[in-house]
Amino acid sequence: MKLVRFDDNGKPRFGSLDGDRITPLDGLIDALTPSGEAALPCSRVRLLAPVAPSKIVAIGLNYADHAAEGNREPPKEPMLFIKPSTAVIGPDDEIIYPPQTGNLHHEGELAIVIGRTASRVSERDARDHVLGYTCANDVTARDLQRRDVQFTRGKGFDTFAPLGPWIVTGVDPSDLALETRVNGAVRQKSRTSFLIFNCDYLVSFISHVMTLLPGDVISTGTPAGVGPMRVGDVVEVEIEKIGCLRNRIAAPR
Amino acid sequence: MKLVRFDDNGKPRFGSLDGDRITPLDGLIDALTPSGEAALPCSRVRLLAPVAPSKIVAIGLNYADHAAEGNREPPKEPMLFIKPSTAVIGPDDEIIYPPQTGNLHHEGELAIVIGRTASRVSERDARDHVLGYTCANDVTARDLQRRDVQFTRGKGFDTFAPLGPWIVTGVDPSDLALETRVNGAVRQKSRTSFLIFNCDYLVSFISHVMTLLPGDVISTGTPAGVGPMRVGDVVEVEIEKIGCLRNRIAAPR
Repeated sequence: MKLVRFDDNGKPRFGSLDGDRITPLDGLIDALTPSGEAALPCSRVRLLAPVAPSKIVAIGLNYADHAAEGNREPPKEPMLFIKPSTAVIGPDDEIIYPPQTGNLHHEGELAIVIGRTASRVSERDARDHVLGYTCANDVTARDLQRRDVQFTRGKGFDTFAPLGPWIVTGVDPSDLALETRVNGAVRQKSRTSFLIFNCDYLVSFISHVMTLLPGDVISTGTPAGVGPMRVGDVVEVEIEKIGCLRNRIAAPR
Repeated sequence: MKLVRFDDNGKPRFGSLDGDRITPLDGLIDALTPSGEAALPCSRVRLLAPVAPSKIVAIGLNYADHAAEGNREPPKEPMLFIKPSTAVIGPDDEIIYPPQTGNLHHEGELAIVIGRTASRVSERDARDHVLGYTCANDVTARDLQRRDVQFTRGKGFDTFAPLGPWIVTGVDPSDLALETRVNGAVRQKSRTSFLIFNCDYLVSFISHVMTLLPGDVISTGTPAGVGPMRVGDVVEVEIEKIGCLRNRIAAPR
């Protein structure tokens, strides 16, 4: 199933997407049921980020080739950082280029969306706590990330966590093609089979540190090929069997 | 005013505390009004963390003496990191000593509670966006913090963000005595006048990166004297004109 969130006269609303038709759903993310209303054409609504996470836990250096391009050793354990929920934007929303940086980078990533509260779950039980998967762009002010050492500022600006376009349930995340393009030119191209720590391992590992709540997002890390984006560029993160997340870079208003 | 949050038959509820009497309040944190119900004796209710933040933005190395004890240069700009909302506990709740660490530390801190949405606010306007101040313990698994470099795991475990016992409004935060005790022995003793970056500066600085929402917390950093806590220890963070936040360390259940 493709799960979307859309703007229903100013109110965020879940729906299931089939072709171009959205069937509105009622309830919370861990218990959604059809509302009984007629389906809407997708082209007539604005899609929002498919989830409003309480937190985004992201993983540093989870592809060996990306670690190598930054002259870093691949980590022995997942390296966690948090992107604030205020950074979340949806498909086709604008990424704002902050005045504090001169080096804004894309990082295309597979994102896990939690469906059931996960605390100290085993790797084997991890998928019972996963609702599905979506595309994420771990937008990064590379200069600030390097200067601060801590990733929070460089990766935490408003609009730095595009998610979407929808959540796909029932997909096996273990070997999906992932591509990031800027103005149509391929910049990152890999497969999720090259993840150092796979999705099930990450859910289990993180859940032994902090409780993962329904709607929380794990952004699994980016492959090699990160690079700059400029105002006016269009960045796309496309993942096989999931979809394509597209955002334009805009100057601050 | 002292603003508390308490457990009202399983439902979190705000109240204003006067002596030992709590007057129940209705509404959200940015628009609280008396409910008209009779006041309750504080001793009869369980106090919760005084706020349920969407995020806790914490500051590394914001007292020169603490930077020196870790052989670190004081930073030229605030160094930000995020503690997840799932780490929050209230006064008298237990801090769980995780099996992954062998070196659990206290870090007593003054915490700012946001009252009005803050995006790109000036230092001069910062206090218009502050509801008040409370005590925080930035509980840290020091070994994991050092091993990961990123602070997220070492500072992000469930129960690692005790807050409370209440929010004090209308207090000037610029020169308050702060003390952290373990089993009654003083471990940290300083004044907020020694903060490298003061409260107004921090609100302004962070709000130029990420939007601060009502209820969000800024933990302003810890002075020298951080040190270990063991299962069974009682840790207290006391701040002049605010109150005393007390928590016991417990083994995992």
